[in-house]
Amino acid sequence: MAASEEVILIAGGAGFIGSHLTARLLDEGRQVIVLDNLQTARPSNLRLLEGRPGFTFVQGDIVDPLPEAVLREAGRIVRIYNLACAASPPQYQVDPEHTMLTNVMGTNHLLRLAEQTGARFLLTSTSEVYGDPEVHPQVEGYRGWVNCTGPRACYDEGKRAAEALTFDYARMKRAQVRVARIFNTYGPQMHPDDGRVVSNLICQALSNRDITIHGDGTQTRSFCYVSDMVDALIRLMESEIDGLEPVNLGNPNELTVSDLAEKVVAMTGSTNRLVYTPLPQDDPRRRRPNIDRAKALLGWEPRVPLADGLAKTCAWFAEELGRVPQRVAA
Amino acid sequence: MAASEEVILIAGGAGFIGSHLTARLLDEGRQVIVLDNLQTARPSNLRLLEGRPGFTFVQGDIVDPLPEAVLREAGRIVRIYNLACAASPPQYQVDPEHTMLTNVMGTNHLLRLAEQTGARFLLTSTSEVYGDPEVHPQVEGYRGWVNCTGPRACYDEGKRAAEALTFDYARMKRAQVRVARIFNTYGPQMHPDDGRVVSNLICQALSNRDITIHGDGTQTRSFCYVSDMVDALIRLMESEIDGLEPVNLGNPNELTVSDLAEKVVAMTGSTNRLVYTPLPQDDPRRRRPNIDRAKALLGWEPRVPLADGLAKTCAWFAEELGRVPQRVAA
Repeated sequence: MAASEEVILIAGGAGFIGSHLTARLLDEGRQVIVLDNLQTARPSNLRLLEGRPGFTFVQGDIVDPLPEAVLREAGRIVRIYNLACAASPPQYQVDPEHTMLTNVMGTNHLLRLAEQTGARFLLTSTSEVYGDPEVHPQVEGYRGWVNCTGPRACYDEGKRAAEALTFDYARMKRAQVRVARIFNTYGPQMHPDDGRVVSNLICQALSNRDITIHGDGTQTRSFCYVSDMVDALIRLMESEIDGLEPVNLGNPNELTVSDLAEKVVAMTGSTNRLVYTPLPQDDPRRRRPNIDRAKALLGWEPRVPLADGLAKTCAWFAEELGRVPQRVAA
Repeated sequence: MAASEEVILIAGGAGFIGSHLTARLLDEGRQVIVLDNLQTARPSNLRLLEGRPGFTFVQGDIVDPLPEAVLREAGRIVRIYNLACAASPPQYQVDPEHTMLTNVMGTNHLLRLAEQTGARFLLTSTSEVYGDPEVHPQVEGYRGWVNCTGPRACYDEGKRAAEALTFDYARMKRAQVRVARIFNTYGPQMHPDDGRVVSNLICQALSNRDITIHGDGTQTRSFCYVSDMVDALIRLMESEIDGLEPVNLGNPNELTVSDLAEKVVAMTGSTNRLVYTPLPQDDPRRRRPNIDRAKALLGWEPRVPLADGLAKTCAWFAEELGRVPQRVAA
C-alpha cells in the first residue's frame, strides 16, 4: 500500500460481521488491515477478501501485544474497529479466561494504539450487557440484569468491562471513541456451527437433523440483517458525536424463536422434526433494542425485511452446505 | 523461613484490611508474604508488620507478571488472598485503566498461581458489584444496578469481571476459590485521605476543617469493624464450602450518613461546621448486606458494636493526626 494512504484496522475482521465490514470498506476503496486470531472465523470468509486491492491480513491475537506487522503501519491508522471476540455461548465458553482477556486486554491494547496514533476507536459491545433484561425494549440507559458469577459472565462482563475501559479513555481524553451495542445479527458468512439461533435453525432445516428450540420457544429475539449492521457501524464510526454514550444497533422487529423456526421451516420446505430442549442457564427471555438514539444521531434504521434477509441467508447456507433444496432468490 | 512451612500470600496486604489480616495471621504463627505496590498503602501499616516473625514483604504490582520473589516460594504457597485494589473512588479514579487491569489481569495472575500451586484463592470483591441497589438489603443473588459507562465502572465492573474470572476457574476445576463481597469496613489504619465516609468524617472532626456530607445525608451505609471483617475472611478461606457462590461480608446495622456524622461529632466533641456537598455521580443511596449466607456457611456475624468500633477508630485517628482531644478508650 502507498505510504500516504490512510489505513483502517479491523480486529476480528475475518469473523461474521467483521468480514462484511471489511468487504464494504474495500468496496469504498479503503485500505484495510484485518487482525484476527482465526479462532472462530471461517477460512472461506478470509478467502473472499484475500487478493482484493487494499486488503492486508495479519494473524494475531489481541490478548497479546499487537504484532509488528500492525505496529509498523501505526502512523497511517486512522480508524480502529474492535470486533474481536467469539460471540456465541458454546464458542466463548470453551475458554472463558481467553474470552475475558480478549475483551479487557485486547480492547486495552487497541485503545493504547488509538491513543498513540490518534486513530478513532470503535468498540463493538453487545446487547448481552443488558443480560436477561427487565426493561423492554432496552434503552441505553438501562443498566442490565447480568449474572456476574455464571457461565455467560466471561462474555457479558467482559464486554461491560471493555465498555468501562473505552469510556475511561474518552473521559481522560486519551482517545476518541465510539461504542456500539450490537443486537442479534444474521446473514451469509455466519458460522454454521456457532450455536446461534438463526444459523442453528437454518442448518438443521437444510440437513437431516431435528430442529431444536431451546425452552418453549416463546423467548423473543430481534434480528438485524448484516448489511444494515455494517451501515450502522460505519455511520457510527464516522459520526461527529461526542462518543461518551453507547449506541444500540439492531432491528427492533421482535419475534419469538418459535415464529422464527416456522419461517425457516416454510422457507426451506423442511419436514424435520421440531424438538424442544432445556433453556441454557441465564438465557435471556426477551431481547429488543430501542434504537431511538441511533435514529437521532446517525439517521439510521434497518431497511432489510426479515423475509428478504432470511431468504438470502437460507440460500447462502444451502450453497454452503452443498445442497440446493427449493432454492430461494439470493 | 523454613522450607517445610506453608506460606500465605496476601496481595494488597499493606492496605487497610490487608494489614489487619496479615497481622492476625502472623499472630496465629503463620508465614505470610505480602505483595503490594504501595499505591494506597500507608507506610506505617507496613512498619507495624516489618520485622515480625514469619513476615516477608515483596513490592510489586499484580498487573505485571508476579515477581520472582513470589514465584520462588510457589511450592509452599497454600493460600492466596487478593485484597489488591484501591477501594475509594478518588483513589481508583486517578488511573481507571490501572484499576481495571488490577482487577482483571491482577486477579488472573493470582488465579494462575493458584492453579499452578494448588493453593486456595480468595477474591475480595465488593458491595459495589450491586451498584446503586434497587433491592434492599442486598442478597447475593441480586444482580445489581451498575452503570458500566460511568466513572465508577473501572472499579465496579473490574470487580464484577474479577468475580467472573474467579468462578470460571472454579467451574473449569482449575482452582479452589472463595469470593467475599465486602461491604463498608472501618477501623484503625484506614488512610486519612482516602475519601471514604468514616475516615473523612473523623479526620474532619478532629481537625479544623468543615465536616462534609455528600447530598442530604439521608443515604445509608452499614459499617463493619475491621476485626470482624478479618474474622470473616479467614473463616471463608478455611471453610469447606464448594466456593461456587459469592458471600456477602459486612455489618447489617444500617444508618444514614447524617447519623454517622452526628455520632462522630458527639464522640470527638467537634464544633466544626457541617457542610452539604453535591452527591458524586452514581453514588449508591442505600447499602446494607443480607448476611444470611455468611451466618449459615461460616457461623459468623459481626460482634463489635458501632459505638465501640468508632471509639477505637477515633482514638487511633486522634493519635495518628498528632492530637489527643477528649481521648476515648482504645
